Amino acid sequence: MGTTGGEVAGDMVFTAAEREYLLSQRLGRIATAAADATPDVAPVGFRIEDDTIVVGGIDITRTVKYRNVLATGKAAFVVDDLESVEPWRPRGVKVRGPARVVEHQESAVIVIEPATVWSWGLNEGAPKRFHTVEKRDV
Amino acid sequence: MGTTGGEVAGDMVFTAAEREYLLSQRLGRIATAAADATPDVAPVGFRIEDDTIVVGGIDITRTVKYRNVLATGKAAFVVDDLESVEPWRPRGVKVRGPARVVEHQESAVIVIEPATVWSWGLNEGAPKRFHTVEKRDV
Repeated sequence: MGTTGGEVAGDMVFTAAEREYLLSQRLGRIATAAADATPDVAPVGFRIEDDTIVVGGIDITRTVKYRNVLATGKAAFVVDDLESVEPWRPRGVKVRGPARVVEHQESAVIVIEPATVWSWGLNEGAPKRFHTVEKRDV
Repeated sequence: MGTTGGEVAGDMVFTAAEREYLLSQRLGRIATAAADATPDVAPVGFRIEDDTIVVGGIDITRTVKYRNVLATGKAAFVVDDLESVEPWRPRGVKVRGPARVVEHQESAVIVIEPATVWSWGLNEGAPKRFHTVEKRDV
């Protein structure tokens, strides 16, 4: 738990403010890497299920992110934007953790289990400063 | 070169439309990985210099992305948003390639040399469809 506010109820991964923000945004960006550490980043739609991040998409099985998750079992994911430019108020939530491919109907999804959560500009009392980030291990 | 428009002049990396879009956006997201393929993603400010992407930031030398680039020499980077939600019109530019740390005044920057460029929703004639992406090797 950070010391800047944002209560995480019980064993929940996200604070109420983080969850509300995630649900308000349409795109996140998922980072994965091949076994040789070649990184990939991709804009993706997402949903939250049981405190995991679920990433789908058309033809996901043909994508680099899909192959990378199969190869390494790891992903990072961020949702962020600028609440305002003047003053400069970035806000966002980032997670990193184990990831897996789950077959879903006739397609597949990538499920990320947050092991570490960072957030900025969202939780009550979070300083509205450029590089103040809360970090929690889950 | 794709077949959907967007001329790349001479040996330039970006089309005029891609460059204009990149210059219009304030944040991109950089993906890097540690040597063991653990991925990281981070929202960053950036600029374009000589067809490279230059990423700076306060205390960058203390960040995971900085350590990862030192360790692996590779990065991916994306700038994207939704031109409209209804109809669904995503647009963006993504690059992947060698990356290096360059000392810059008293700080440092990460310089990414695009080896592959993808873009969507930007170049003249680019289909305004969900998953139509142009890809070019540079």
